[in-house]
Amino acid sequence: MSDRADELAIAVDAMGGDHAPDAIVEGAIQAARQGIRSLVVGPEERLRPMVADQPLVEVVHAPDVIGMGDDAVAAARGNGSTSVHVTLRLVRDGKAAAAVSCGNTGALVVAAHFDLGLLPGVERSPIATVLPRANGGKLILLDAGATVDCRPETLVTYARLGASYAEAIGMDNPRVGLLANGEEDTKGNAQTRATLPLLRQTDLNVVGNVEPSAAMDGACEVLVTDGFVGNVILKAVEGAASVVTGRLRKEIHRRWSARFGAWMLGGAMRRFRQRVDWDAHGGAVLLGTQGVVVVGHGRANASAVRSSIHLAHRTARSGSMASMAAQISQTPDDR
Amino acid sequence: MSDRADELAIAVDAMGGDHAPDAIVEGAIQAARQGIRSLVVGPEERLRPMVADQPLVEVVHAPDVIGMGDDAVAAARGNGSTSVHVTLRLVRDGKAAAAVSCGNTGALVVAAHFDLGLLPGVERSPIATVLPRANGGKLILLDAGATVDCRPETLVTYARLGASYAEAIGMDNPRVGLLANGEEDTKGNAQTRATLPLLRQTDLNVVGNVEPSAAMDGACEVLVTDGFVGNVILKAVEGAASVVTGRLRKEIHRRWSARFGAWMLGGAMRRFRQRVDWDAHGGAVLLGTQGVVVVGHGRANASAVRSSIHLAHRTARSGSMASMAAQISQTPDDR
Repeated sequence: MSDRADELAIAVDAMGGDHAPDAIVEGAIQAARQGIRSLVVGPEERLRPMVADQPLVEVVHAPDVIGMGDDAVAAARGNGSTSVHVTLRLVRDGKAAAAVSCGNTGALVVAAHFDLGLLPGVERSPIATVLPRANGGKLILLDAGATVDCRPETLVTYARLGASYAEAIGMDNPRVGLLANGEEDTKGNAQTRATLPLLRQTDLNVVGNVEPSAAMDGACEVLVTDGFVGNVILKAVEGAASVVTGRLRKEIHRRWSARFGAWMLGGAMRRFRQRVDWDAHGGAVLLGTQGVVVVGHGRANASAVRSSIHLAHRTARSGSMASMAAQISQTPDDR
Repeated sequence: MSDRADELAIAVDAMGGDHAPDAIVEGAIQAARQGIRSLVVGPEERLRPMVADQPLVEVVHAPDVIGMGDDAVAAARGNGSTSVHVTLRLVRDGKAAAAVSCGNTGALVVAAHFDLGLLPGVERSPIATVLPRANGGKLILLDAGATVDCRPETLVTYARLGASYAEAIGMDNPRVGLLANGEEDTKGNAQTRATLPLLRQTDLNVVGNVEPSAAMDGACEVLVTDGFVGNVILKAVEGAASVVTGRLRKEIHRRWSARFGAWMLGGAMRRFRQRVDWDAHGGAVLLGTQGVVVVGHGRANASAVRSSIHLAHRTARSGSMASMAAQISQTPDDR
């Protein structure tokens, strides 16, 4: 347990996600073993026995829970004593360096607006997720699902936030692409055709329209789209990865017999899954809010929760949100 | 060479696609070796020497070409002597059973409207493409890129066309899903939320909103969306498949050495690629037009062109377009 780790506590919504609270608390305990302190938030009487006297994991009481089926906006507006609200207010009040929730994404986004507030000039906070590229680099896709319908001006703000985030995590002069169905300026739909000229007026390193396949092949570092398209793209990529690995496994087994094939591919398949499995990457980061919020996967297991806590910890430590806030506020206001 | 094959000639736009006319003519020659007759369309002086005295491949003269960079609508409207127009009119005039083009998709779609016409009650013709599912079944995705912006009523027509096509190619009572970012009725964007109630009023087997990953996992047989989202989904899936195979290959080589790994995986990798490589599946079918049109991939090589010709031949032989026309015209007009 290092001093630095102890300084940066991560507030974790213990009640959000399909496997809450068990997988969430177990993920916090796993992160604690690696030196990261967590504040797990939820009904005290329920969480206390699970945490026991685990060092580096503390319980913070929140009596209520937002369910996955609830109306997100109403739920996030309605009740200040839910686990997600209490989690976010730990960040607002400086008691935690970042927040993690695997619960209802819509509710989390709305609650973050209410409890943390947005950066100046930001009207919507997009979710930024990282996809692996063919060459081993990273591709930041945003919005991965915070807001389904948005204006062209909002997409320009997403581009600014995405580029700032990319720089904050070490990418130099990141290239920004607008997700479209072809690279020519004439491609795209009504929304992207209205957005592209606005993007080109900024001082960002805009490469223009970029197809998803080209982006994964290295055409840009930041890929901008609305939350509907971003989310379905992400789910298409997950689906395709699953189809491909399943079929390849079957083909190999057909040739080599199931047992020999499994033995032969064991290590390679495992390492590969760790790299390509987006769940294991620890979720996504909400950009544009006054504080670090990590959006975990609803189906997160303990290991994915641990990854989300690590991501929150890394992001908080990098100071990327603070530098993003500074960059965004310096931006000439052409929104 | 069978008599039946000889009856159904396929009109092939020899001048469309990145590798035209060489790859196109070579693809037609490959299909001819398997008994399928083609009419390759383009400048006669250029194509004649390539075809030579190849049986089952005939040259039909068209002096002009639509380039990939041209404005699709203008080009398709402007010139009746381009290879794509002449190709389509061979179908209209009953000289060919189906058309294949790997050229500018927008131009092809517009030219098909002009030269073939649409089925009654159809205002836009969507492109239907087939994706592999995890369990080995098929998923029909439409619109894969014909029309980027469309009305909710148009998506309902796409659903009808997709379901008819699914039945025509042997799927019984196909389940229709509306592509969205979650399965609950409250999910989706403004467009899908306006479309879902209209879909539910039809007599189609509508399962509701379906995420792409769930669709690839078997939640529906027909997945409906607009041409912008459909096209970027398709390109995301292609990109993901490419990232996954590339990384897995690297992981395996890391463990087993490049040469041994390549030998070991040779057959499995090849069979797998044939199944998952969407290019090799021969392109997509334009639905709702008065005649069979196959939209080949712009980057199609000879083998992909051969696959497209096979797909056109199969589709024409199945009579699926005729039965679709009958079904659509019987549909109560709630559009």
